[in-house]
Amino acid sequence: MPQDVDLVIVGAGPAGLMAAMWAAVYQLKTIIIDKRESRIVNGHADGLQSRTLEILHSFGFGDQIYKEASLMQEVCFWNPDSYGVIRRTDRIPDTIPGTSRFQQSVLHQGRIENYLFDFIERTSSEVSVMRPAKPLTIDVDESAIESEDAYPISVRVECLSHNQPNGTSSAQENAEVGENEIRCKYLIGCDGAHSWVGRQIGLVMEGEQTASIWGVMDVVPITDFPDIRMRCAVHSANSGSIMIIPRERGLVRLYIQLTDIRPARGERFDKSMGSPSLIFDAAKKILQPYSLSYDYLEWWTIYQIGQRVGNTYAKFDRIFLAGDAVHTHSPKAGQGMNVSMHDTYNIGWKLGAVLNKTAQRSILKTYESERRPIAQQLIEFDTKFSYMFSGRPAKDLADEAGISMEDFKATFQKGNDFTSGLSVRYGACKIVAQEHHKSASADPAIPKSVLQLGSRLPSFQVVCQCDATPIQLGDVLKSDGSWRLLVFPGDLRHEASMQRLKNLGERLDRSSPCGFPFLTENCVQPILIHASPRREIELFDLPKAFYCGSAAGNGGFDYYRIFADDESYHQGHGHAYENYGVDKERGLVVLVRPDQYTSWMGGLEDLAEAERLLSGILRR
Amino acid sequence: MPQDVDLVIVGAGPAGLMAAMWAAVYQLKTIIIDKRESRIVNGHADGLQSRTLEILHSFGFGDQIYKEASLMQEVCFWNPDSYGVIRRTDRIPDTIPGTSRFQQSVLHQGRIENYLFDFIERTSSEVSVMRPAKPLTIDVDESAIESEDAYPISVRVECLSHNQPNGTSSAQENAEVGENEIRCKYLIGCDGAHSWVGRQIGLVMEGEQTASIWGVMDVVPITDFPDIRMRCAVHSANSGSIMIIPRERGLVRLYIQLTDIRPARGERFDKSMGSPSLIFDAAKKILQPYSLSYDYLEWWTIYQIGQRVGNTYAKFDRIFLAGDAVHTHSPKAGQGMNVSMHDTYNIGWKLGAVLNKTAQRSILKTYESERRPIAQQLIEFDTKFSYMFSGRPAKDLADEAGISMEDFKATFQKGNDFTSGLSVRYGACKIVAQEHHKSASADPAIPKSVLQLGSRLPSFQVVCQCDATPIQLGDVLKSDGSWRLLVFPGDLRHEASMQRLKNLGERLDRSSPCGFPFLTENCVQPILIHASPRREIELFDLPKAFYCGSAAGNGGFDYYRIFADDESYHQGHGHAYENYGVDKERGLVVLVRPDQYTSWMGGLEDLAEAERLLSGILRR
Repeated sequence: MPQDVDLVIVGAGPAGLMAAMWAAVYQLKTIIIDKRESRIVNGHADGLQSRTLEILHSFGFGDQIYKEASLMQEVCFWNPDSYGVIRRTDRIPDTIPGTSRFQQSVLHQGRIENYLFDFIERTSSEVSVMRPAKPLTIDVDESAIESEDAYPISVRVECLSHNQPNGTSSAQENAEVGENEIRCKYLIGCDGAHSWVGRQIGLVMEGEQTASIWGVMDVVPITDFPDIRMRCAVHSANSGSIMIIPRERGLVRLYIQLTDIRPARGERFDKSMGSPSLIFDAAKKILQPYSLSYDYLEWWTIYQIGQRVGNTYAKFDRIFLAGDAVHTHSPKAGQGMNVSMHDTYNIGWKLGAVLNKTAQRSILKTYESERRPIAQQLIEFDTKFSYMFSGRPAKDLADEAGISMEDFKATFQKGNDFTSGLSVRYGACKIVAQEHHKSASADPAIPKSVLQLGSRLPSFQVVCQCDATPIQLGDVLKSDGSWRLLVFPGDLRHEASMQRLKNLGERLDRSSPCGFPFLTENCVQPILIHASPRREIELFDLPKAFYCGSAAGNGGFDYYRIFADDESYHQGHGHAYENYGVDKERGLVVLVRPDQYTSWMGGLEDLAEAERLLSGILRR
Repeated sequence: MPQDVDLVIVGAGPAGLMAAMWAAVYQLKTIIIDKRESRIVNGHADGLQSRTLEILHSFGFGDQIYKEASLMQEVCFWNPDSYGVIRRTDRIPDTIPGTSRFQQSVLHQGRIENYLFDFIERTSSEVSVMRPAKPLTIDVDESAIESEDAYPISVRVECLSHNQPNGTSSAQENAEVGENEIRCKYLIGCDGAHSWVGRQIGLVMEGEQTASIWGVMDVVPITDFPDIRMRCAVHSANSGSIMIIPRERGLVRLYIQLTDIRPARGERFDKSMGSPSLIFDAAKKILQPYSLSYDYLEWWTIYQIGQRVGNTYAKFDRIFLAGDAVHTHSPKAGQGMNVSMHDTYNIGWKLGAVLNKTAQRSILKTYESERRPIAQQLIEFDTKFSYMFSGRPAKDLADEAGISMEDFKATFQKGNDFTSGLSVRYGACKIVAQEHHKSASADPAIPKSVLQLGSRLPSFQVVCQCDATPIQLGDVLKSDGSWRLLVFPGDLRHEASMQRLKNLGERLDRSSPCGFPFLTENCVQPILIHASPRREIELFDLPKAFYCGSAAGNGGFDYYRIFADDESYHQGHGHAYENYGVDKERGLVVLVRPDQYTSWMGGLEDLAEAERLLSGILRR
């Protein structure tokens, strides 16, 4: 008897678990198939972008990870002086100040996965993990692809022994030993480089390997190098480069260029040739004249740099690929785990909304159109960055074979915007309005600012009208599947602004026959941010749409959807209108997707436009 | 066979659990005896002072409680106008801005206790809970009181059934059914009002009951009262008063004066006369003309106001009393749970240090001398506050029988300093230096500022020298049993300051024969906060004493005890020297107790004085 589920996820790494987080939020019946016997406990990826922390925080626990992680504040550049001795030549902030409340951080993948598992377990009992297990075949009934209630995908899975060497597996990580047949509506392949799922749907990885070989070690270093707790890019004169990444628990990750090993172009390096002592000896040479040793080594590996992107991300809009399965590159910029999680953060809510029948199936097409260009940008950045980091520093201006350290720093600095994950901008599509798609009245209201269609809404502090508590607007935009209509009516002490808000409030009134549709609990949630002094506004003078309906479901109102852009008692003023560039006279309405990307912007009178856009996305 | 343990704690409420947290930190073998069948799940205390949150955060989880709690930002005063209709007459911040990074908050006692239990469980396996259980007798072998390794106290305990009605008990909350005999070195009675332990040692509670009867209800209110999510003090013209305390999960706690019930002076009120409808009808009358109803009631009770303090806090310095056992008063100012936890936060580290043989037994005398005066202050405040809150508002200046609402607000506002728990100042004693006890050289260096002998060290932001991360100095002063020597050497770009620091560094060098004693891992920890730009100081130019010895115990250095009072990249400047009032030319050294209270202050040359003080406290 096959088991029928909504979703099968192949691979319980960061990409697979992020997909499973959405599955938990939407209460989808889900099975994750993972080949590993247990969770990983050390090594692997560790970089966390600002944007990834924002995303994790939208599930409620980004702050906990941030507390445990090692924060990257400063990057130090060490380059050879005219005698060939390394010197600190520059320092820059690792995250561009003002772009996010979370800075670039590092924490090893196993800990991050644990946080994701914990969220899944406390949110839903519908998600289970089968491990160690491997999929054997995938069959798709093509005739049922557009049929809503069908299970068109069949997966045969072999569940291996239950020999679990450590205690990191939970009760949900079990299954019957032997062959299982699972039928599902959708499947996501998050099974890493050389993806098995990818092979089943004819994936071709486009791109190539370079000849550059690097080692990675996680150690507790004993050293007189003064910047060992800073992120450092060290170029030695002739011995190659090191990237230093300080980590949690006194650990430091070293990315070490192995200049003595040079495979022929196009050939793969044989990993068995590497060893910790070979790698560490290279590190010592690069860091001379500073001493370097260790008593404790936690993890190491060796890799060859290459950059590849998959030619396709989906088949039949039923099977999707994400993460390393569709993009591989060098790990030094700390991008892999992030871009992988962002892939499934994108497809996850779309699948959830389609499966719970609030959205139209056609939105699934936007997964590839939104995410593949990001992978291409990543590969482009990584190619340039890796080339410059692996190159020998130029001795002087005439040394054209060498890399200019000024150019390297400039690339690094420019890359910071990209590597934070904050600069992602999805183009106009079914779920993002076109720039020119504005009514005459809205046009001048739309700010030239950090608010951009297709970009994630940045967070600024506002103050709760009901209890004067300062809160980051980002904390309101939780990943619970809701779309949000952020209404910025301006200063409500002005009669015209209040009247405009009241007119809008009538349209948002559920009981009104000409009301705005889509306002059911988990579809579109109206949120109000006014620009008046909090103490000069009375809560119950504002439209009911912004407080009716109790969040806790035990009577009373939901008081936490009305905010003032005002001074707080203890944490200053967030200046949200100014930061977002919203005109206090005209006001603005912003439609925000469940993943916090801006879908539409317009004036308070332009709600019909938002309704038109949503008619192509949501179901009534 | 009696069981031998270091410590017995009677009562698993907030006071008992705070004692158990220290027991866990010091790995004391400890048994908690609790009469309840399981943990509490609703009602009871809920107020959390700023200082309590600081204390909980020093164990590592104050921020989590803060995130879950409802923060009190503003107090609104509602008083009758000349027509007798209640109006909002004023608003003030609930916590005085600038005094703490944590503001007054509320969360129900059961949730807070769960956080404490979780800490205990993950920190030590030596602490267990016996419940439901009651102590039968206490016997003390007076001949063994001063004997270090003896177990002079015998307790017979009856452990009742294991019938646990809900799943909130952990594996550690079990014991053999029947009579158990326990021998222990120390015992703390945290068994609440009418303390059984108190009766065994002849406790007399001094003070009296008033005639004022109040009801308490935790409901999700349905109301058009606009400030229902604010803390409100409402005085009606003739129907009594309400205190409104917004809580987590949409709940609101209402303290409701029951003016219709007036027991004769000196008599106790019969609780069975109360009911939710009786209390709620009184609330409705007070809040007129606003509507008030509810669908969900979580908890209610009724109480008579009285203020009492115990005549003694300890016997033989072997048995101690804490919390409601030695002070009872009205709950409206949200003080009870806080002052109770502070009692055992005080005795806990002292007992831990005596039991692990790093401190002298004589410091235990300071428990009563430090904590009893605080209870007396509390009772004095509560008497005045309760009288004013229970009184009828004066109609005009001539109405002398009424309470002036201006006076009430002034009392409230003045009380905020006390009720935050931040104004506690322990007097000079064995563990706090006397004001006049200063050498000539130190005298002018000691600032007139927030730094005061016997007061808790406030927290300001500094920047880690090693990795540029901004951190609250309060986060460094963890409750791990360490004393700290905070060294403020000033701006190290000045040669004289650097030289003074180097001289001090030599004295702090463990390998030096004339070195400062007490520097073993958990005794006195040196911490450096310099006033130079971080980027102009090299870590390894600073004395070894501030980085030698790895915290994680896996090699390497402890890089996180050196800080700069400098600008951070993303979170501004903490201005620690300015805020503490430390002179950048002269510098300052501050000796801080394990509970973050200041023990001694002096110049960088005055270390001998600190040594002299510590010789009377610690053991070598």
